[in-house]
Amino acid sequence: MNKRLKPIAATVLAIGALAAAATAMAQQAPKPEQLIKWRQSAYQLVAWNTGRVKANVDGTYNKDDVIKAANAIAAIANSGLGALFAAGTETGKGWHDTAAKPELFKDGAKVGELAGNFSKEATELAKLAQGGDVAAVKAQLGKLQRTCKACHDDYKAKD
Amino acid sequence: MNKRLKPIAATVLAIGALAAAATAMAQQAPKPEQLIKWRQSAYQLVAWNTGRVKANVDGTYNKDDVIKAANAIAAIANSGLGALFAAGTETGKGWHDTAAKPELFKDGAKVGELAGNFSKEATELAKLAQGGDVAAVKAQLGKLQRTCKACHDDYKAKD
Repeated sequence: MNKRLKPIAATVLAIGALAAAATAMAQQAPKPEQLIKWRQSAYQLVAWNTGRVKANVDGTYNKDDVIKAANAIAAIANSGLGALFAAGTETGKGWHDTAAKPELFKDGAKVGELAGNFSKEATELAKLAQGGDVAAVKAQLGKLQRTCKACHDDYKAKD
Repeated sequence: MNKRLKPIAATVLAIGALAAAATAMAQQAPKPEQLIKWRQSAYQLVAWNTGRVKANVDGTYNKDDVIKAANAIAAIANSGLGALFAAGTETGKGWHDTAAKPELFKDGAKVGELAGNFSKEATELAKLAQGGDVAAVKAQLGKLQRTCKACHDDYKAKD
């Protein structure tokens, strides 16, 4: 190749690669509605499994059932849910209109702290579930639910 | 207490306890629509996280991201999803009309086997994610996706 053409060719190739990457990203990036659906689904699953733990500590305790439920809560809490609150998802409809308040997308540090508390208490619940101490699981469920409420109080629109 | 009255009193108490328990169960038992919402939510989260693993193995691999996603898939797969297909949920609307075919509620042994395969391959994916061998994770993702397809082929209505 002519030496003077090389830099141009390289630039053309680089632009082509960038364009291809941008196209691939555009194709792969889920739409805001999809992200909202996923986050609504995530909290629904947390609700299902939190309810299961509550039914166990208030009724007949099945250790295996509690372990399964607590593991699901912890894995979801630690899955990186923040990605489902990406820019562009401040408003919109997933399964239903988002209940996230506008402030959630502005108070980064505070929201991060609350999300961290949720993950921490969910992880602790999963650990305690392995032990099977009903009173300890019940107390920890309370701690977990308070982290849910702390975030809902400030950042979730009332039904 | 009069000896002759004792059995009657015990029976009355037992009936009372049964009635209270039945009331509590009726209050706590989620409605079919709620169960369908939860199962639809569960598979949505599996889709979100499967897509994340796929994006990682096809693009830039982030080990931590894959671990989080694979843990979520495994915990959901092992959470006891069968409970969300309880009697009474054969038809109905959760977020949308159920896509579960009637056969799913009849072929117990076959469905159980397919669900077991899903759990097994999801658990294996979570294990391999810890290692971070991209080729191994990619191959295992393929195995997992085949277990999804195997069930969808027979038991999920086409869109």
